Amino acid sequence: MILNAQLRDTSYYITDLKLCQVRLSHNATYPWLILIPNREGVQEILELSSGDRAQLMEEIALASGALQEIFAPDKINVAAFGNVVPDLHVHVIGRFTSDLAWPNPIWPVDHVSEYDPKVRNELILRLEEALFQ
Amino acid sequence: MILNAQLRDTSYYITDLKLCQVRLSHNATYPWLILIPNREGVQEILELSSGDRAQLMEEIALASGALQEIFAPDKINVAAFGNVVPDLHVHVIGRFTSDLAWPNPIWPVDHVSEYDPKVRNELILRLEEALFQ
Repeated sequence: MILNAQLRDTSYYITDLKLCQVRLSHNATYPWLILIPNREGVQEILELSSGDRAQLMEEIALASGALQEIFAPDKINVAAFGNVVPDLHVHVIGRFTSDLAWPNPIWPVDHVSEYDPKVRNELILRLEEALFQ
Repeated sequence: MILNAQLRDTSYYITDLKLCQVRLSHNATYPWLILIPNREGVQEILELSSGDRAQLMEEIALASGALQEIFAPDKINVAAFGNVVPDLHVHVIGRFTSDLAWPNPIWPVDHVSEYDPKVRNELILRLEEALFQ
């Protein structure tokens, strides 16, 4: 599957799970994973097969668990919009009562910061490991 | 399960599916369903059993299909936040390229309108029927 350019250019590759490519948002303000099902042309959850839907849910749970293990957030936010990038993708975001947008959803994204490349590379390795436990 | 008062007071009962109570948001600006798993004390998707997670995903697909059948939206938005009301609940919202918040997520909810009670009751009946097809 060819990854949408906007998704690709605003996130970093972590790993491929059974259904989804998992990526880290470039925005270091929040611990923010993006799951992209490897299914060409699918825009809505309803368009996935029932088996793929169950797998997507398991991968959302995996991503949530990885964020909980590494960041211990106060809440996990999960969202699939696709209003701008129509290819199906799911945001899984760790939220803290102390974060800049709390208690609102992070959208519209008013707070953007970039990772230090070394910190980011270490985080990607830790996330990859946590996703395969 | 005792429904959270804020969820209850800002939405209308439609029906109970196998896992979730399905409710209609009071906000008529968007076709907006809320799925609330009937599991006491559950706040995160990760806390549901694997079977319940698969069922939740099927009910998200059912809700999406009901909105598509009745409203034919341009996109379905799905989101689980819980930053304000921590009990797990999933928003399933029909979006139009012509709606007031497009292409942004509807949060923060700047546009609120109320249903005419007769229109609302008819819509609830249509949604209930569409959810059981």
